Amino acid sequence: MYTKTKKIAILPPIPVLEFERARRQNQYEKFAAPGTSVDVRILKGGPELTDREYELFWSTGFMILEAEQAASEGIDGILIDCTADPGIEQIAEAVDLPVIGALSAGVHLALQVGRKFSVLALDAQWERMVRSRLRDYGLTGHLASIETVGKHVYQPARGRNMVEGEAAAFINLLRAAGEKALTAGADSIILGSTTIIDGIAELENMLRIPVIAPGIAALKTLEMMIELGIRQSRRAFPKPAIAYGTKMAGLLHIQ
Amino acid sequence: MYTKTKKIAILPPIPVLEFERARRQNQYEKFAAPGTSVDVRILKGGPELTDREYELFWSTGFMILEAEQAASEGIDGILIDCTADPGIEQIAEAVDLPVIGALSAGVHLALQVGRKFSVLALDAQWERMVRSRLRDYGLTGHLASIETVGKHVYQPARGRNMVEGEAAAFINLLRAAGEKALTAGADSIILGSTTIIDGIAELENMLRIPVIAPGIAALKTLEMMIELGIRQSRRAFPKPAIAYGTKMAGLLHIQ
Repeated sequence: MYTKTKKIAILPPIPVLEFERARRQNQYEKFAAPGTSVDVRILKGGPELTDREYELFWSTGFMILEAEQAASEGIDGILIDCTADPGIEQIAEAVDLPVIGALSAGVHLALQVGRKFSVLALDAQWERMVRSRLRDYGLTGHLASIETVGKHVYQPARGRNMVEGEAAAFINLLRAAGEKALTAGADSIILGSTTIIDGIAELENMLRIPVIAPGIAALKTLEMMIELGIRQSRRAFPKPAIAYGTKMAGLLHIQ
Repeated sequence: MYTKTKKIAILPPIPVLEFERARRQNQYEKFAAPGTSVDVRILKGGPELTDREYELFWSTGFMILEAEQAASEGIDGILIDCTADPGIEQIAEAVDLPVIGALSAGVHLALQVGRKFSVLALDAQWERMVRSRLRDYGLTGHLASIETVGKHVYQPARGRNMVEGEAAAFINLLRAAGEKALTAGADSIILGSTTIIDGIAELENMLRIPVIAPGIAALKTLEMMIELGIRQSRRAFPKPAIAYGTKMAGLLHIQ
């Protein structure tokens, strides 16, 4: 029996506020294996939310810099805590560590529990960003549908997330989207945001199909990769000729 | 932090002889997480080797019966220890447990370390059986190639596996097939048999791309599924109206 200790850096695509960082930290710790430590990091800059390709792009630069920083601190793997998988290719190129995206980990688990999956995206723009990613991965043929939920969990403008009554209403929105997914032929459902954490078991009971929390799937997949000593192929993601981290950090005024 | 103990039944597709059962048992134990126990089982009947669709078919009946038996003993998950994934759908229908096939687990890990993978199949017929499976999974678009190795590891007719000199020659065959895979554009390689166990690190060093042992990928994926409480979707694999295990066991004279 062999077991490595595993230090995992978790990168939300935005500099989340502390209450949200703590919530994510707590959630990932719940699912971490013995010997795994997780560290949800706050980016040194970036937009408050990523709901557009525009915002995702600007986030990605800060994620790359944070990944390079984390790698220099001796961590064992990087988890992209976002269902658009921003920066996954760039970070796989930049660092010598396994990098896992929430969407891709969720999809590859979904394809082992059934043939067709649906994603519950937060809104129409997220629907488009997730679809674009799945197209790039060559996996849209396995998609039953992408359904939209119509509400966000993380609400930095209010300085807090949903409270009790709002959370209950949110479950109903998830359920309504999930029922559309069933009609579309989904064998399983992937939550379209790593911020959806509560009510998963409830949703699974209502829909009677597997509901996958993509961030947690990514955590367990990353543990597997660290345990097996496997990282991304350098043939797929060759190292850049010049590491631009310091220079770009200067341009972004976060050096 | 939550961690369930996990009892996993490992089903080779054939009633392997004891020396091979012990070898596989030892190998899976090496990679099992703390709290995971593995049990490589000997089927109650079936062909000596599975190198044809004909043999795979006859194996599958015995695998289903063994899976039903294992499920009745209170195990937590079933691993199909074969890169043709025989019986995976039938067993997912029959039992209320997660079931993982070596090929599918290997492929879904490969697709997270690169975009194109190759499989090193033992011979031309295995090439055909693996290709047929990948076609069924809708994943041939991600395939760089299937290369053939030209030799088998498990040799029941001799009452033993390869010895030292033969094993060294086998690594060279793997390397030759792996180099063809590189030419074909593979980002990673999946070993085409769960009997290929030794020399993986050596092969990885020679080829400089990730080499995936599919049985081990299946073990770690199954641990993830048990940990997360996820099994196959009943929408994809509905329960049969009548459980035929006892009756079929009678027909196969193994009740």
